[in-house]
Amino acid sequence: MDSAALWQRYQDWLYYNDALGFYVDVSRMRFDDFFVKAMLPEFERSFQEMAALEGGAIANPDENRMVGHYWLRNADLAPTPELKQEIVETLDRVKTFASKVHRGEIHPPGAAKFTDILSIGIGGSALGPQFVSEALAPIAPPLALHFVDNSDPAGIDKTIAKIGDRLNTTLVLVISKSGGTPETRNGMLEAKAAYEAKNLDFAPHAVAITGHGSKLENIAKADNWLTTFPMHDWVGGRTSEMSAVGLVAAALQGIDIQAMLDGAKLMDDATRIPDLKQNPAALLALSWHFAGNGKGAKDMVVLPYKDSLLLFSRYLQQLVMESLGKEKDLGGNVVHQGIAVYGNKGSTDQHAYVQQLREGVPNFFLTFIEVLKDREGSSIAIENEATSGDFLSGFLQGTRQALYENSRDSIVVTIPEVNPRTVGALIALYDRAVGLYGSLVRVNAYHQPGVEAGKKAAASVLALQSQTIAVLKEASSPLSLTEIAEKAGACDRVEEIYKILRHLHANQRGAILTGDPSKPDSLQVSWQS
Amino acid sequence: MDSAALWQRYQDWLYYNDALGFYVDVSRMRFDDFFVKAMLPEFERSFQEMAALEGGAIANPDENRMVGHYWLRNADLAPTPELKQEIVETLDRVKTFASKVHRGEIHPPGAAKFTDILSIGIGGSALGPQFVSEALAPIAPPLALHFVDNSDPAGIDKTIAKIGDRLNTTLVLVISKSGGTPETRNGMLEAKAAYEAKNLDFAPHAVAITGHGSKLENIAKADNWLTTFPMHDWVGGRTSEMSAVGLVAAALQGIDIQAMLDGAKLMDDATRIPDLKQNPAALLALSWHFAGNGKGAKDMVVLPYKDSLLLFSRYLQQLVMESLGKEKDLGGNVVHQGIAVYGNKGSTDQHAYVQQLREGVPNFFLTFIEVLKDREGSSIAIENEATSGDFLSGFLQGTRQALYENSRDSIVVTIPEVNPRTVGALIALYDRAVGLYGSLVRVNAYHQPGVEAGKKAAASVLALQSQTIAVLKEASSPLSLTEIAEKAGACDRVEEIYKILRHLHANQRGAILTGDPSKPDSLQVSWQS
Repeated sequence: MDSAALWQRYQDWLYYNDALGFYVDVSRMRFDDFFVKAMLPEFERSFQEMAALEGGAIANPDENRMVGHYWLRNADLAPTPELKQEIVETLDRVKTFASKVHRGEIHPPGAAKFTDILSIGIGGSALGPQFVSEALAPIAPPLALHFVDNSDPAGIDKTIAKIGDRLNTTLVLVISKSGGTPETRNGMLEAKAAYEAKNLDFAPHAVAITGHGSKLENIAKADNWLTTFPMHDWVGGRTSEMSAVGLVAAALQGIDIQAMLDGAKLMDDATRIPDLKQNPAALLALSWHFAGNGKGAKDMVVLPYKDSLLLFSRYLQQLVMESLGKEKDLGGNVVHQGIAVYGNKGSTDQHAYVQQLREGVPNFFLTFIEVLKDREGSSIAIENEATSGDFLSGFLQGTRQALYENSRDSIVVTIPEVNPRTVGALIALYDRAVGLYGSLVRVNAYHQPGVEAGKKAAASVLALQSQTIAVLKEASSPLSLTEIAEKAGACDRVEEIYKILRHLHANQRGAILTGDPSKPDSLQVSWQS
Repeated sequence: MDSAALWQRYQDWLYYNDALGFYVDVSRMRFDDFFVKAMLPEFERSFQEMAALEGGAIANPDENRMVGHYWLRNADLAPTPELKQEIVETLDRVKTFASKVHRGEIHPPGAAKFTDILSIGIGGSALGPQFVSEALAPIAPPLALHFVDNSDPAGIDKTIAKIGDRLNTTLVLVISKSGGTPETRNGMLEAKAAYEAKNLDFAPHAVAITGHGSKLENIAKADNWLTTFPMHDWVGGRTSEMSAVGLVAAALQGIDIQAMLDGAKLMDDATRIPDLKQNPAALLALSWHFAGNGKGAKDMVVLPYKDSLLLFSRYLQQLVMESLGKEKDLGGNVVHQGIAVYGNKGSTDQHAYVQQLREGVPNFFLTFIEVLKDREGSSIAIENEATSGDFLSGFLQGTRQALYENSRDSIVVTIPEVNPRTVGALIALYDRAVGLYGSLVRVNAYHQPGVEAGKKAAASVLALQSQTIAVLKEASSPLSLTEIAEKAGACDRVEEIYKILRHLHANQRGAILTGDPSKPDSLQVSWQS
C-alpha cells in the first residue's frame, strides 16, 4: 500500500472521542473489507449480547451471576432500584470515609491521622489498585500505599519492615470477595501477627472489602473492625477497580475517583454504540480477532510510552487472559481460547525485546499507548529544539513504522494525558473490548474455573504435608521417601512428599534429610521437633 | 506415564549443584530419548563454540567483538594479561569507591554523605541493576536507588520530585557504552537541568560508566565529573550486570558484589562441562529447543515464587529476546528466531493469567523458580500447622502438577534462598543457556541490529519535525497537512507530520491545529511562537 492509500486508510478507520480527546487507530492491522464484512453479523450478535448483559441477564451462566461492572459507572443502568441504591450508597460511603480519614475524624488509636495503607489482596483485588496508584497517585499522597499480594513470607516481612514505625498509623485493607482466598487470608493473619508483636490492636486499623455474608465479613464484624465495604456479587474481581475494591485505596491516596468513574462512563457510552466504526472497543475486538484468527494465535504486546502506565499491561494480563483463556466455549466444545498479553513500557522496551519484535518470531501484534502531554510545565531543548518528549514521540512513531514495514501489525491508542478520566476510560475501553471479543468467540468471559482448580491442587499438597509429618512423628527410625509414602497411603506421590520434606528441611521445621541430595531415593528422613 | 515412571524420570534428569545448593528439574518437559540422542551432536558443537568464545574468539562477527562477560567472574580466564588486569583493577576500584562513599570520604559539596543514587541508563544498563536491587537491596540501604530508564518527561519529573530535597546528596550514575543512546543522554541533560534549577553543581555528583573514548567519557572528563568506570568493549549490555554497570549501584546499596561474582563463577564452572546431563544451562537449552521446536514456537513464561525475584522475567526478556530474536542466522538465511518471555511472580500470577495457562491456548512452556527458604526467623501457623510459606510451596507444586496433567510442560529451578550468590548464579545460568541455545539455532546472540534501526527511524521523525516547524514558521497563512508535507518535500509522510503536529499542539509548542480532530485532512495548521 503506498503512502497516500495508507494515509487514507488511517483516516477512514480513525476513531476519535471528542469528550475524552481519545483516539484509536487500527489502520495498521492488515484486515481487508472482506474480513470486516464477514465479521459484521458476528458483531451484531455481540452488541445484542452486551446489551442483554447490561440489562441484567445472566451473562456468567456457570456461576449464575449477572455481570454489572458497567452499572458502577452509571447507577441509572442498574436493573433494579435496590441495586442502584447499593451502588450510590457505597460510592458515597467510600468518599465520606476517605475524607474523614484525611481530616483525622477517623484515626488510629493514639495518633491523630493514618499515614499509610497496607492493602492485602491478590488478582483483581491488587492489579487494579496497583495500576491506578502507579498511574495517578500524587508524589506525596495523604496516605502511602503498600501491597501484600502473595503468600510469600519474606515479601510480607519486607513490606511490614518498610512501613516500620508507622504500623500504628497504617490502615489495613483486606480485600477478598469470599474471604476464602488463601493468599489474602494468610496476609491478613501475618499482618495481624505483626500488629500483635508490637502490642498494637489490629481491629481499629482494619477495613474489610468483601462479599455480603462472607467469612471475612463475619470476622470483621465479630472483631469490631473499623468498617467494611461491599464487594458486589455481580462484579468480577478483574473488573472491580471501579467498585470499593479499587475506589477505597484510590480515594485515600487523594485520587479523584469521581473523575475516574466519569471517564469510564463516557467510554461505556461510546462502546455501547452498536456500530463497528463508531465503537472503539469493537475496533479493538475486531483487530484482536483478525490478528489471532479468533484463536489467540498471536500474543498481544502492550507498550504504553509513559512511565506512569507501566502496570497497565500487567492489569490487562489478568483482564484479557483470565477472561478469554478458556478450555471450552459456551457450547461445551473444547477450544483452548485466550490471548497472551505482555509488555512494560516504551521506549524502554525498545532496548529490551523490540529487537525480537522487529526481526524475530512474528507471533504477536502490538498495541502502543500514546500520551500527548509530555509533562507539567515546559521542557528544555535537547537537540535542535527537540525535547525529551519529542524523542519519546519519535521513538513511538519510528518503531510502529519500522514494525509495520516488517509486516508486524499494531494498534495505537492515544490519550491527551494521564489523569483520572483517561485512566477510567482506558479501563472501560478494555473491559468492553474483552466482553465483545469473548462474545465473538463464544466463551464465558466472566468465570475462572482454573483458579479454583489451582486452590484445590494446593490444598491437596498441604493435606499430604500433614500426613507426611504425622508419619515421621510416629516413626522410631529414619525412613526413605518410599517408606514414608507407603505409610502415608500415598505410594503414587513420592515426588510430592520429597518436595514437601525438602522445603520443611530448608526451614528447620523438623524434617531432617540425610544422604546425597542429588539422589532423592538415597535420602533418609527423620523428625526432630 | 505412571507415577513411578515419572518419579524415576524426575530422578534421572535431576541436576543438583552441591556448592550452590541449586537444582534444575526438566523432568516435566516431554522430550524422549530419541530427541535427546538427536540433539547430542548439536550440543557437542555448541560446547565447542562456547569454549572458543571463552577463549577470546570473535563470537560477535557483525561487530567484530569478543564476548567476555564470563571473564568478569574469573579474570584468570581472560585471554590476555592486559584484559585480566583491567578486570581486576575495575573491580577493585568499584569496591574502593563504594566504601569511600559509605564512609563519607567521597561526599557531595556541602554535605557529609551521599544518601541516594540516581541511575540513568536503559536496556542492559537498567534491567540488571533493577532486578538485583529488588532482589537483594536491604530495607534501609546506605544509598537509596532511583532510576531514569526512559525519555519520558513526566517520568523523569516524578523521579526527581521523589528525591526532592536530597538532590544535593544524590550521586548520579550515567550509564551508556557509547554515550550515544538518546534516552540516556536526554535523562542526563534533564538531571543536569534539575541540579542547575536548584543552583547545584552537577559535576561533583556525577559518575560516568561508559566505553573508553566515548562521547560520554569525554564529557565526564571535560566537565570534571566525580569519576568514571569502564564499560568494556567485550561485554554486551544485556550481560553487563557483573561489570561496573551493575556492580557500582549494587556495591553502593551495600550488596555483597564479591558473593554475586562468586556465585556466577561457580555456575560458570558448572555450565562449562561439555556433558548435557551434568550441565544445567544445557538442560535449559535442550528444554527450550524441545518446547519451541528450535523456532520459538512457544513462549517462555517465567514465574518465581518469591516477591523479591519479581523483576527476573523482565531481566530475562531482554537477555533472551534481544539475544535470540534475529531475522537471519549466521549463514544469512532468514529464520525469524527468538523466544518470547513474560511473567511476574507466583502465586500472584495464579490469580491473573494462570487461568489461561491451565485451560487456554497451549502456546507456552513454564519455568518455575522455587526458593526453599521462606524468611528470616520462624513463621506463625496459619491452618493445621501449615505456614504462609507452606502454602506458597503448595501453590507451586499444585500448579505445576495441574499444568502437567493438562499437557503443559514446565521446568523447575530451585535455589536454597535469595542471596547474592544465588542471584549471581541465576544470572550466569541464563547467560550460558542463551549462549548455548543461540549456538544450537546458529544465530549471533551478541548483536542487536534492530535496536540501531529503531534509533534511525526516530531520528528521521525528529528531522521531519524540524522541517515541519521551519515550514510553519515561514508560512503567512494556515496550511493543511498536505500543504505542509509538500512544502517540506515530504509528500509521502503526511501522517507522520500530522502526529508530530498533534504532539506539538498538545504541549503548547507553537503549532495550532483548528478543525475537526476526527478528520485530519480538515485540519488547518498555523504557528504561534
